[in-house]
Parts: sequence; structure tokens; C-alpha cells
Amino acid sequence: MNYKDHRSIRSFLPKEVASNLLTEILTIGTRASNTGNFQSYSVVVTQEQAMKEKLAPFHFNQPMATQAPVLLTFCVDYNRLATWCDARATECGHLNLMGFYNGTLDAMLFAQNVAVAAEENGLGYCFLGTVLYNLEGIIQTLALPRGVMPVLTMALGYPAENPPLRVRLPLEAIVHYEKYTSFPTEKVETLYRDVENDPFYREQVKKAGRENLAQLIMEQQYPSATYEKLSAELTRVLVQQGYTLD
Amino acid sequence: MNYKDHRSIRSFLPKEVASNLLTEILTIGTRASNTGNFQSYSVVVTQEQAMKEKLAPFHFNQPMATQAPVLLTFCVDYNRLATWCDARATECGHLNLMGFYNGTLDAMLFAQNVAVAAEENGLGYCFLGTVLYNLEGIIQTLALPRGVMPVLTMALGYPAENPPLRVRLPLEAIVHYEKYTSFPTEKVETLYRDVENDPFYREQVKKAGRENLAQLIMEQQYPSATYEKLSAELTRVLVQQGYTLD
Repeated sequence: MNYKDHRSIRSFLPKEVASNLLTEILTIGTRASNTGNFQSYSVVVTQEQAMKEKLAPFHFNQPMATQAPVLLTFCVDYNRLATWCDARATECGHLNLMGFYNGTLDAMLFAQNVAVAAEENGLGYCFLGTVLYNLEGIIQTLALPRGVMPVLTMALGYPAENPPLRVRLPLEAIVHYEKYTSFPTEKVETLYRDVENDPFYREQVKKAGRENLAQLIMEQQYPSATYEKLSAELTRVLVQQGYTLD
Repeated sequence: MNYKDHRSIRSFLPKEVASNLLTEILTIGTRASNTGNFQSYSVVVTQEQAMKEKLAPFHFNQPMATQAPVLLTFCVDYNRLATWCDARATECGHLNLMGFYNGTLDAMLFAQNVAVAAEENGLGYCFLGTVLYNLEGIIQTLALPRGVMPVLTMALGYPAENPPLRVRLPLEAIVHYEKYTSFPTEKVETLYRDVENDPFYREQVKKAGRENLAQLIMEQQYPSATYEKLSAELTRVLVQQGYTLD
């Protein structure tokens, strides 16, 4: 398996990830591009079972959060940078929305490079977006100080499953040439046909008793009310972690 | 060259990127993980010279913005999703901070997978963070509609240079085990030694007449006042593009 035909792995063998392998894939991660080469990110490695169990509820007790030998929580980090600036008689002026946003870009390019390196070394992973649902719990459990915001967790280990490739939208849904052209309804119908007809999603829609996949996503899995609550919480936690938002 | 020893390429051969190769690397990009498989991103491809010249000022006329055969502007995109939701009698509830943030994570995992695939195919690239400095100009030039926000541009082509590997912080500056531990000043001094002593950065500091690298970054290259202005502009443009922020 590799990044060209990536499958998310949610079931892992009871086999450790050797520390030199972990070091290697994280080092490769840092080769990704980043803004101004000040690397405004960090990663917290969770390997102790007790820590996984403390984190589990914040990942909604998804089995992979405790079963994976390693959790990697990718963070935007201006704590280290601020200490360095203090030592060099200047001030880290990035504890604001743009700093957080830029740090997020850097953290995600880093995370995806780690992901590619992991698969190239026989490992599998699944990203847990649950971090953004439980920022406060993650921050307290990992003891993240001022300037540090968790963004995304990766559950990492040796795959105990080989799931089929997940369907994606056709490339023409994603790519625009020279200028963006909004798709008319008829075209969108065509673009979403394969996704909507995929047996995996048809089964999900049926199980949930929904009319269609869009309704399943927007009314049950990722609803507006949740997103609005999480937006407010993201704002609150950013301020708590030392970011000035206006 | 590949993702394990990535160098940013800022000078390109006058050689087209074949359209089937571009299609291949973008398709590989879409294999990256994304939230809920609704792929809340898109990419605008710029190949026409006239369009590159229109975009150039918004990339501060950096030569690679017009010299690269291809520019890829990665966007958070809820326009397509909203049209699909309309057609399926539901509402896209993601035009808020959390939707934008989640779309950003997806867009960046996609972008880095494209980056890895590009290098594997003999191409080189440089990310242009200038997008966030000139959102309005990019949006107008690429005709980005409601729900679409540009995030990051990649200048892509065949390398005409082979620059040395850029120094990074030692891994121990980036990685924390089990809990985050803030570095005391003495430790930060050690962690930043290689970066500060690197001839490339020593020369930059000297040229700029600054005392040290931290001051160069925070007082000249990425200053607080700019970040605050850009934070306000990001907020303004999000609202303009249809995002509700509170």
C-alpha cells in the first residue's frame, strides 16, 4: 500500500512501531515545505496504554484510538518559537488568526509527508478528525501550553486489514482550468453519480434511514448545528491558548 | 529528488508539463485522506501566460510565478458541495469557521500528496504562501465564487536548479512523548544552534543588517503588524465568500 492508493486503516496488528522507524518517518515529515522555515508545528507521540485510554473518550472511543500502537497528535506550535524569540530579544508576533492559519498549513504538509513515509514503510494509518470536537480534553491530557493547538491525530501501526479503495469524485469535479466555473445542477448530478451509487454509501444511507447521501452527511454526520458549536469552541480555545483574534 | 529530501525549486526549465502527467499527479492527490469523503477542496490550474501575468503581482512578482509552466492554486471549496446539497433537498451547513478550517486540512493533505507525486515524476515545485497576502486579487483573477477560498499556490515544473538541502530543527525540537514539555531557554539555544549557524541564514541576517535570525523573521520577514492586518483581511474575505463567522 502507498500514498497512490491510500486506504485508511482502522484495525492494527499487536506489533510495536520501532522507535528508529518512528524517528525516520517523523524526520521525513519535517522535510515538507513550511512557511519561512520556522516550522510552527510539533507532534505529540502517544504510546503508553494509560495515555491512550485517557485520550480515548476525546476520540469518541473509536477502537483505533486505543488499539493503534501509536497516536500522533499534530499541533500548531508557537510556544517553542516564542521562547526562542524571547531569548533573541524580539517578540513572536504570530499568536493571531494568521499565525494559527499559517501554522495549520505547515502542520498539515508535515502530517501528510509523515503519512506517505509511514505507508512506504509498511505501516497503515487513519486520521482522527475528532481532535476538533474535543480540543479542551486533548489539550489538558497532552498538557499543551500557551501557543500550542492540536489539529489532527493519526492512529498509526501495522495494518490488520486490507480494505478496498474508497470511491472519490471524478477529477473534473476538483480541477478548474484558468478560471473557476461553478457547476450547474445537471453537471453536479453526473459528478456525484459514482459516489452516490457506491455500495458502501448506499448501505450507510439505508442504515441511517435517510433519503440520500447529502442528507446523511449534512443532517446526521456533519450537521450545521455541530459545525456552529465547534466554530465557537475553536474561537474560545484559540483565545485560551494565547491567540488574539481581533 | 523526492519527498524525503525535498528542495523547493524556484527556477524551471522551459518545458511543458504534459496534461496526462498533470492529471495523474492530481488524481494521486485526491487519494489523500479527507473529512467524511466529501472532499471540500478544489484546485485551479494556471497554464496560460496571460493568466500568470495577471496573478504575478499577487505573488509579489516572484519570478517563479510567471516562469513555472504550471501554477496550482489549492482552495477550500463548499461551492460544489452546496450545489449538490441543493439538488438533494438539504443544506450545506459548513459555511462557517469550522467548515473553512476542516476544508483547509483536507486541501493541505491533498496538496502535499500532489507535491509528493510531482517529485516522484521528476517535477519540482515551490509553495507560494503569498496567496494569504492577496486573497482578493487571487479570488477576482481566478473568478472564485461563494464558498471558495484560495489557500496556497504551488509553482510546478521541471527543475532548472538543484539547490542544497535546507537545514531543519533537530527532531527533538518537534516531537514530544506522552506529554508536551515546554523547552527552557537554555534548551532552545541548543535546538536552534544549527539553524542559526547555517551559512544561508547567517548571510540573510547579515544582508538585512539584523542582529539575529529571530529578529529577521519577526521584525522584517513575517512581522506582527503584517500578521494582524492579514488576520483581519482573512476574516473579511471569509465573510465576503459566504462564510458566517459568528
